[in-house]
Amino acid sequence: MIKEAIYHRAMSPFVYKYDRETIHIRFHTKRNDIQSVDLIWNDPYDWHSEDPAMWNFDPDKPSFWRTFETPMEKIGHDDQYDYWFIAIKPPFRRLRYGFRLHDGNETAVYTEKGWFEDKPLDDTGYYFCIPFINPVDIFHAPSWVKDTVWYQIFPDRFANGDSSLDPEGTLPWNSTEPTITNFFGGDFQGIIDHIDHIVDLGITGIYFCPIFKATTNHKYDTLDYMEIDPQFGTKEQFKQLVDLLHENGIKVMLDAVFNHVGYNHPWFLDVVENGPQSEYRDWFYLRDFPIETTPKPNYDTFAFEKNMPKINTEHPALKAYLLEVARYWVEEFGIDGWRLDVANEVDHAFWRDFRKAVKQANPEAYILGEIWHDAQPWLQGDQFDAVMNYPFTNASLNYFALDRTSASEFRDELTRVEMMNTTNVNEVTFNLIDSHDTPRALTRAKGHKGKFKLLMTSMLTYTGSPCIYYGDEIGLEGEQDPGCRRCMPWDETQEDRELFRYIQKLIRLRKEHPVLANAGSYRFNLVDNESNALIIERCTKDETYLIYFNNSETVSKLNPLWHTGSAYDLLHDRDVDSLEVELAPFSATILKMK
Amino acid sequence: MIKEAIYHRAMSPFVYKYDRETIHIRFHTKRNDIQSVDLIWNDPYDWHSEDPAMWNFDPDKPSFWRTFETPMEKIGHDDQYDYWFIAIKPPFRRLRYGFRLHDGNETAVYTEKGWFEDKPLDDTGYYFCIPFINPVDIFHAPSWVKDTVWYQIFPDRFANGDSSLDPEGTLPWNSTEPTITNFFGGDFQGIIDHIDHIVDLGITGIYFCPIFKATTNHKYDTLDYMEIDPQFGTKEQFKQLVDLLHENGIKVMLDAVFNHVGYNHPWFLDVVENGPQSEYRDWFYLRDFPIETTPKPNYDTFAFEKNMPKINTEHPALKAYLLEVARYWVEEFGIDGWRLDVANEVDHAFWRDFRKAVKQANPEAYILGEIWHDAQPWLQGDQFDAVMNYPFTNASLNYFALDRTSASEFRDELTRVEMMNTTNVNEVTFNLIDSHDTPRALTRAKGHKGKFKLLMTSMLTYTGSPCIYYGDEIGLEGEQDPGCRRCMPWDETQEDRELFRYIQKLIRLRKEHPVLANAGSYRFNLVDNESNALIIERCTKDETYLIYFNNSETVSKLNPLWHTGSAYDLLHDRDVDSLEVELAPFSATILKMK
Repeated sequence: MIKEAIYHRAMSPFVYKYDRETIHIRFHTKRNDIQSVDLIWNDPYDWHSEDPAMWNFDPDKPSFWRTFETPMEKIGHDDQYDYWFIAIKPPFRRLRYGFRLHDGNETAVYTEKGWFEDKPLDDTGYYFCIPFINPVDIFHAPSWVKDTVWYQIFPDRFANGDSSLDPEGTLPWNSTEPTITNFFGGDFQGIIDHIDHIVDLGITGIYFCPIFKATTNHKYDTLDYMEIDPQFGTKEQFKQLVDLLHENGIKVMLDAVFNHVGYNHPWFLDVVENGPQSEYRDWFYLRDFPIETTPKPNYDTFAFEKNMPKINTEHPALKAYLLEVARYWVEEFGIDGWRLDVANEVDHAFWRDFRKAVKQANPEAYILGEIWHDAQPWLQGDQFDAVMNYPFTNASLNYFALDRTSASEFRDELTRVEMMNTTNVNEVTFNLIDSHDTPRALTRAKGHKGKFKLLMTSMLTYTGSPCIYYGDEIGLEGEQDPGCRRCMPWDETQEDRELFRYIQKLIRLRKEHPVLANAGSYRFNLVDNESNALIIERCTKDETYLIYFNNSETVSKLNPLWHTGSAYDLLHDRDVDSLEVELAPFSATILKMK
Repeated sequence: MIKEAIYHRAMSPFVYKYDRETIHIRFHTKRNDIQSVDLIWNDPYDWHSEDPAMWNFDPDKPSFWRTFETPMEKIGHDDQYDYWFIAIKPPFRRLRYGFRLHDGNETAVYTEKGWFEDKPLDDTGYYFCIPFINPVDIFHAPSWVKDTVWYQIFPDRFANGDSSLDPEGTLPWNSTEPTITNFFGGDFQGIIDHIDHIVDLGITGIYFCPIFKATTNHKYDTLDYMEIDPQFGTKEQFKQLVDLLHENGIKVMLDAVFNHVGYNHPWFLDVVENGPQSEYRDWFYLRDFPIETTPKPNYDTFAFEKNMPKINTEHPALKAYLLEVARYWVEEFGIDGWRLDVANEVDHAFWRDFRKAVKQANPEAYILGEIWHDAQPWLQGDQFDAVMNYPFTNASLNYFALDRTSASEFRDELTRVEMMNTTNVNEVTFNLIDSHDTPRALTRAKGHKGKFKLLMTSMLTYTGSPCIYYGDEIGLEGEQDPGCRRCMPWDETQEDRELFRYIQKLIRLRKEHPVLANAGSYRFNLVDNESNALIIERCTKDETYLIYFNNSETVSKLNPLWHTGSAYDLLHDRDVDSLEVELAPFSATILKMK
């Protein structure tokens, strides 16, 4: 038994409150070292109770030291660890627990106070503790997010519907490659004009890159958080757009940058002009006066970007203003969520108050942080509902697009991503395969449509809340920014309509079969490195779906482990008598077992 | 290399912000598996920088992929793990980092994305990330706590100074053994009368068990949070007491129970009387009406104690009232801290707002939670400053009092306790060897004064903020409650004055030599199971103290590892020419190296 491989603390994500009655416990052991794990558990105050009136449990189990032992389920593994899981509903919403491990030869008990040969019963103090399930502490994200399929729009490049708004120097639509500085005049009217395209695809949420007043084409250098950039339209038009999208069952999420402003923001210009006398001097992190940008900025910035001075979100007046911004767009315009740029560099105290302000305006608003790394400190229930799941992006691209990993390595990587956060976070996490900050996924796959479809199939049958970057659905390509921010062509000859229909179908299946979204468990069934193929299993107690992936250039016959019978092939609309399915190179299918 | 033994996340307590410039990183590897660990690190945005103007670093190290590698220090071990540590001051307060491990044969690099043969340099995304040191997120406890020596008073049993206040049925002072229900009439005047005893001992903080209006002798069944129990005195007398203690350099901490009230609290009686119509029905967790206490309570309670109904700290009106209580006693009476009873069962959201209320009233007030188990979720800087360090209590008793562990097992247990929380928490944690909730430590040591002195010596030369339970200093004994709540005898014939002087001296040494408190590192030097002896080393860059413990019944000659020279023996006030010291059975000494 490799005891050093075990690490458990009574803190998230090792253990967490899933809902008002349920505690989830996870445990990891060295891969293939342990045969079974039992949870030893009871009420913290019942270990001593001799009074049967205190027992809410099976009266046929009389025992002075009343502890229960319940087997944990092995829910997956990667190359290092086996992962074990149990959901417990303790009758008084309090729990003490430990683990009994068997490796075939040896048995050992693991507690907060270390290892024992058998469970110590002279004190409850040995055991891990969840003192009480207080409802307010339970991670709670809006439930609609679980069923949403997002579409990300970079506003300057989606559609130009009102040329009268075009900023000076706007180029003719799609007339050339995007650059860091050029403009194509995309606006709200363009989105209104093309809403059919979005509705037709099956989209139920739009994530807009910034629309507030700014100087650049990407608008991440905010000049005024309370104003729409005139190139997109007016506040009235924005309200019309939100209402129209809502009428079409589409939620609206805006992008806000609370980490920094643009150099030309009036606050910063005031500091540049008035130096230490400026009333805004403490709204920034200034190191010296006068403000200088060379050889390097003498103030804190986003990265080393002199045009983006970092703002001090601890300053009470600035904080109050930003919280008012958060409230304003939710309450006055009815937006359904905030995507928070560079969210990881802003203080936690700000995000806690931000959550209160937003949820007070709309308890079912979605708060999504841009965090590319391990985001556990922001996902405890008091700050964000979710983060952009770039670890999922990387795992997906490495396997389906880049051939950097084998089927089993994909399994390992995706399992680690799943285990990184709690289940209630994973159910609303924002999954993507590309964005305005990455090369297009189709381009990563060297234009290979089959591989790109596998990527889409994988994301649209995965847990969480998937997002399609505008244009991906018609085969738009592009390298890292600025390449990935091309104009939507709006020209059928430049659109892959067959790809559109494929993704449209995946979205429809996801909606019609919630097990393929967040109603079912997600497990790796077949993981075949030789044929570079996978079968994923998504189940509830009553239903089983099998998703086949042939990520190779040869035809493959795939057979799931531990299942037999007949099924319905949802992707090809046909009955199949057997679960053995022949797949064309770089293709997928989705079976629903009968 | 046992890679499965490694677990690191970019979250506390694995990594944390120590102050406005410094990040602490901890790492564990299987015991004796790894020879050295280097931290690979740099600014998250500098890995790509080719512009020397962006570098705040050594210009003689030109490298396209600028990463630094700095050795980590091995700071200790237990039976399972070696522990490594490094403090880093990143110039722009941002950090990406990974670990390079060497085991003599193999080298491997560990990152957030897994293991590599060498450090990956195509992307910073592999690395663990601390995005920015935002000052507000740094754990900040009042600095005076580091230098405080506490004294815990159970008010009914310390001294009866005003018999006119005695509740009905009060027994003559110390006339009999304490029971769960009897009263001895201790009060504020008694404390005022005996303040010399406390000052003489060297105490600089008093932790009072509850003084608010209640029915029991322990007062944990609050009836009114805004009133002093009349058995102790008036508010005016309490204010006098606080002022007198302050004049004597003694801080004051009160005990509050925000998890439950007494059954006879007017709120609960209202619910009992008016059932669902009571305006207080949502202030409790009621399961049914009418309220019943048998066969078991049909409402949530503390443990299964029907006389202590649990209160719903999420209810806005109740929460506002309790936060006002928190403010009131700090602002109106100048108390310096709150000790929070059953703190773990109250919601985290309440504690976050509680901290804001208290720190607004006095930014340097101390917030101490009663949590016996792993308390990491409460010690992130947004809730408590510290918890009662019962894991330290257990480790200390197991070794010095109960002979349950060997010297090396004590080292293992204490090292695990240290590693459980961050250094800034450990510096203010509330260390104790007994309390009103445990048997007296001297009784645990079967009355053995030598062993008891070792316990005191260990606690009073340990990091954190130590607390002496009233009467321990004169040799009071007693089993678990009610035995441990005996009256102070105030009779020299019943007091061990030599013990008093020993503890008094330890306290004086702790004050005169801050290295023995929190100014120096704490390391195990000699750990000798054969002679059951220890030498602890406490150091700064300039000073080294060695604390010798002979926990055996034979005379022992102890010699520290890796030190030689002469020293001053602080406990026996004499020069010693050699660090080899002969210790009587069950005795200690404290050397300051010259």
